[in-house]
Amino acid sequence: MSQLAIPISAPARAALLAALKTDAAGLIPAIAQQHDTGEVLMMAWMNAESITESLTTGRVCYYSRSRKALWRKGEISGQVQMLVDLRLDCDGDTILLLVDQLGVACHTGRRNCFYRAPRGDALTNIAEPLIGPEALYRK
Amino acid sequence: MSQLAIPISAPARAALLAALKTDAAGLIPAIAQQHDTGEVLMMAWMNAESITESLTTGRVCYYSRSRKALWRKGEISGQVQMLVDLRLDCDGDTILLLVDQLGVACHTGRRNCFYRAPRGDALTNIAEPLIGPEALYRK
Repeated sequence: MSQLAIPISAPARAALLAALKTDAAGLIPAIAQQHDTGEVLMMAWMNAESITESLTTGRVCYYSRSRKALWRKGEISGQVQMLVDLRLDCDGDTILLLVDQLGVACHTGRRNCFYRAPRGDALTNIAEPLIGPEALYRK
Repeated sequence: MSQLAIPISAPARAALLAALKTDAAGLIPAIAQQHDTGEVLMMAWMNAESITESLTTGRVCYYSRSRKALWRKGEISGQVQMLVDLRLDCDGDTILLLVDQLGVACHTGRRNCFYRAPRGDALTNIAEPLIGPEALYRK
């Protein structure tokens, strides 16, 4: 099987959760990569509850460290991430999510969050927003 | 310019370091991606010193949290990462490194570290080592 069958089985979910090495706050960094193009979209944090929800619903749910709550990606903006696969690294302390990103991943309206790079004598923006934040977060 | 000119200028380096939001230990997570294939290879941590060294030498240097020391990737194994570009995310708290990985990135001898995935009722290995760890770390 080249990808996840969602919802994954309870034993597989338990094996995954048992293999996680979370930090002192129970969190683990998760990298989101667009499954077909390979574009790295963003990095955020997950806990056991957000992982379980993601694996059950097939929609990516993170844990927001600033809001101290589950963060269902796209809940407000509509820019959801559908889960295609989940990989755990050798040390069990980082997750790679293969996703199908609807629209844009970044809250600035850019497709991905990694748009600043050293060029010449400055740190410059190398990508432009595809949609305005006011359009993303209007009611 | 589509990639970094190494060594980058002192002003660009200063701008990058000023934009970093490191954690309480002065560290920031860095994702390493193979620049041409898009393969996500690994995630590790950097501090200001390892970033400066990477940008100066063009060889990726991390900070090892277990050894509490600079970790020049490939120093022992020979599996070095040449730096192609460095991107900072919107919040300044994650780095994306575009690299050219010589050999394998993972200490298990696999090309990348993300080789465990839920399949059926288990967490299974979906990639095999390309080289034995004993060959990677022999004197």
